[in-house]
Amino acid sequence: MTNVATKTDKKPQTAISPTRAENFPEWYQEVIKAAELAENSPVRGCMIIKPYGYALWENIQKQLDDRIKAVGVENAYFPLLIPLSFISREAEHIDGFAKECAVVTHHRLEKNSEGKLVPAPDAELEEPFVIRPTSETIIGDAMARWTQSYRDLPLLLNQWCNVMRWEMRTRLFLRTSEFLWQEGHNAFETADEAEADARKMLDVYNDLYVNALALSGFCGEKTADERFPGAIRTYTIEIMMQDGKALQACTSHNLGQTFAKSCDIKFQGRDGREQLAWTTSWGLSTRSIGGLIMSHGDDDGLIMPPRVAPVQIIILPIMKEKNPALLEHADHLKRNLQALGIRAKVDTSDDRAPDKMWRAIKRGIPIRVEIGERELAEGKLTFTRRDLGRESKTTCSENEFLESAQNTLDAIHEELLNRSRTRAKEMIKNVTSLAELKDIYQSNFSGFVKAPIAVLDDPDYQTIKKEYSLSARCIPFEDEGATVLIGKSY
Amino acid sequence: MTNVATKTDKKPQTAISPTRAENFPEWYQEVIKAAELAENSPVRGCMIIKPYGYALWENIQKQLDDRIKAVGVENAYFPLLIPLSFISREAEHIDGFAKECAVVTHHRLEKNSEGKLVPAPDAELEEPFVIRPTSETIIGDAMARWTQSYRDLPLLLNQWCNVMRWEMRTRLFLRTSEFLWQEGHNAFETADEAEADARKMLDVYNDLYVNALALSGFCGEKTADERFPGAIRTYTIEIMMQDGKALQACTSHNLGQTFAKSCDIKFQGRDGREQLAWTTSWGLSTRSIGGLIMSHGDDDGLIMPPRVAPVQIIILPIMKEKNPALLEHADHLKRNLQALGIRAKVDTSDDRAPDKMWRAIKRGIPIRVEIGERELAEGKLTFTRRDLGRESKTTCSENEFLESAQNTLDAIHEELLNRSRTRAKEMIKNVTSLAELKDIYQSNFSGFVKAPIAVLDDPDYQTIKKEYSLSARCIPFEDEGATVLIGKSY
Repeated sequence: MTNVATKTDKKPQTAISPTRAENFPEWYQEVIKAAELAENSPVRGCMIIKPYGYALWENIQKQLDDRIKAVGVENAYFPLLIPLSFISREAEHIDGFAKECAVVTHHRLEKNSEGKLVPAPDAELEEPFVIRPTSETIIGDAMARWTQSYRDLPLLLNQWCNVMRWEMRTRLFLRTSEFLWQEGHNAFETADEAEADARKMLDVYNDLYVNALALSGFCGEKTADERFPGAIRTYTIEIMMQDGKALQACTSHNLGQTFAKSCDIKFQGRDGREQLAWTTSWGLSTRSIGGLIMSHGDDDGLIMPPRVAPVQIIILPIMKEKNPALLEHADHLKRNLQALGIRAKVDTSDDRAPDKMWRAIKRGIPIRVEIGERELAEGKLTFTRRDLGRESKTTCSENEFLESAQNTLDAIHEELLNRSRTRAKEMIKNVTSLAELKDIYQSNFSGFVKAPIAVLDDPDYQTIKKEYSLSARCIPFEDEGATVLIGKSY
Repeated sequence: MTNVATKTDKKPQTAISPTRAENFPEWYQEVIKAAELAENSPVRGCMIIKPYGYALWENIQKQLDDRIKAVGVENAYFPLLIPLSFISREAEHIDGFAKECAVVTHHRLEKNSEGKLVPAPDAELEEPFVIRPTSETIIGDAMARWTQSYRDLPLLLNQWCNVMRWEMRTRLFLRTSEFLWQEGHNAFETADEAEADARKMLDVYNDLYVNALALSGFCGEKTADERFPGAIRTYTIEIMMQDGKALQACTSHNLGQTFAKSCDIKFQGRDGREQLAWTTSWGLSTRSIGGLIMSHGDDDGLIMPPRVAPVQIIILPIMKEKNPALLEHADHLKRNLQALGIRAKVDTSDDRAPDKMWRAIKRGIPIRVEIGERELAEGKLTFTRRDLGRESKTTCSENEFLESAQNTLDAIHEELLNRSRTRAKEMIKNVTSLAELKDIYQSNFSGFVKAPIAVLDDPDYQTIKKEYSLSARCIPFEDEGATVLIGKSY
């Protein structure tokens, strides 16, 4: 184990070096590497999501997909490529972020005179395409065709897909040129329905974060500056990371009639008159994995929230030589756990016991079970909760363990959620003025500041914001518009 | 119902016009339209998969994904874009099909002097990218990094994703520029393992087709001409469509060391010496939906095989005016069916009874239940199996129906599978010579011909093949290399 400090070191050994306190951004990269979640690819800014990271994403997808379907939204699939003319339709949209994107200009390769493969000059497209940075325009175009009458509304659509936004400085999961997400696009008869929907989908996300990812964030509205280009209101969940920075964990937009206008989404209303629809869009991406890592991880690496953990319980048979009876026993325990609906696995590798243990720790597996030969004889086992640290071992009978396994997983979920809640509370300072805000960040404060909403209109706000790399994270619902949360962010 | 012939017509009314006999390709398009599976998009050659079509794809994915995971393969995700230099590495691969693809040359748009959005000249990429037509080269590159020792093998990876191959003539599901698929990429220590794997993954696909899609095809090897570019052996399942043409339903390739060489996938073997890995790749796409339509559909539209049907049982409350008791009863029946693990739905629309019925028929829902007010009073219902035609109504008590529902779904599966098996048998002619083969196709035969393998070497074969638009579909396993199946194909 190269990155575990040896016993002769003075500081306590940790699986990840540097520690969070030493260098948080580097710690983040090392956690991802140690857990084998993802890595950079030879394609600039694009990542490879490795099997363990993808299994996590599949579990997040499943949890969110069930919730999306439960509110009546249907999945569909729209083209990857968007004609330039579509992007051009919505001026605000372009200025906002549609410019930095991958442009497809040719549809064939050929060998040039030097035998090198190049885009074929005679295969240049009349109209270039961009790879979707988001799909409002192409889905809006379909909605316009599908919506004749108020009877066709609401139209509730979602797609799981890849998107691209050309990024210069990238970080695994947090900011990559290509990323995976879901984008929901709903259309309604009335403004009120669209507004209610944008709020409802934020609730769906919040339910996912709280009850599946064990993450507690601030739900609120974005300020005008931070709105999605084209939206009349953008809602967000901002989660406090351990270094005091905010992660925008998802967004839900009330698009008003912006895209209905530019995409021509018209319908005949109940009064017989033609009118424009009201639309929303809402998305959550592989960024959520970045948030999970930076919220739950410790100096030994990842801590997986149990409800999305690819492996919830890992069983380590501890033996000097291959012991078929012990392996058989471990496998039997695994099957008993699986019968309870628990994702259990046996580490059947030939690795040494400490290697098995450290791998399980770095991968953040919620419960680690160790069974040695003596325990086998006694019908006992020892288990360790990942969230409580390496020393918190419990020895019990196998039956006791089986009976309490689901409760233990739930307890780990609650513990992680509580930590997230406590952090959000402890790392917020309330201020009453911009001067106070400035003082706080001047003293190297990490965390959010909650200020009266009026500070945004203070002429000095823009300067201070710039000086300390701050931004308005959201106007939290909890204070009904009276305050704004300000902080640094990812 | 515009496309249902009225009673004054002489021919029997069918929901789809034209019928299969009148014009099979047009019938195909109309079935897709009537079932609302998919439609063409404004992006040339790319389709929009509508919610009902996507729900079908999700069920196919789930069935296949479970099978893929059961054989130990793990899902991962690799970049959408492939650097030109990667594509260039494998000469055969390029010549085969990598040339007709979407080429990304710029990473930003800007407004030109006329205010028109164009690719920004200063944002031209040094090295263009192609949108993956398949991912052997980029996954091979990662495999090379991940494989140091024989202990790292086998490496069993799969990804669910979108791919693009620029197509000039497209047809929904069968041939589109962008399509959805899974592509598996496995690497092994030995040639034998790779060969066994390519065969095993074909078995996995065959199990999916037979046991989930109710489709029986011919498993076999592709002839050298029809191999995947770079493969040393390509295995395929060729399914007979109702018009006698073959659909290549999936492929599994033994790539030998072709990609290990070009991607440098090396490892230290058990003998301590560095050696090249042996790889396979295998894929199944949204094409499978095209095969399902053309195999199972009838002149009333789609027939969904029950195990992947988005809705397995639809309940139609038949009432003149809204009858809350009847709707409540239908909902109760739905919940009872759902408790049995059956995907059931109530048509709660205000549409007239015949409209509800025709919609259910055209969508191919395996079982249609009708409950009227008299049936409600008697505790009875009437159900119709989609595969047995509109007149095959059965009336029974609700309890009887609940008890037999799963069996009825299984019976529909068996019936569809039998039809597929029978068709494959009846539409094959055995010939002993090329002359005989020619005679048969001269007389406008629709179907496959099974010929001695030696006909492929006959100098006239190429001419005849061209004349009748034939191709060698596969060398079927059932005859152990002695024969070849020849036919027209999609």
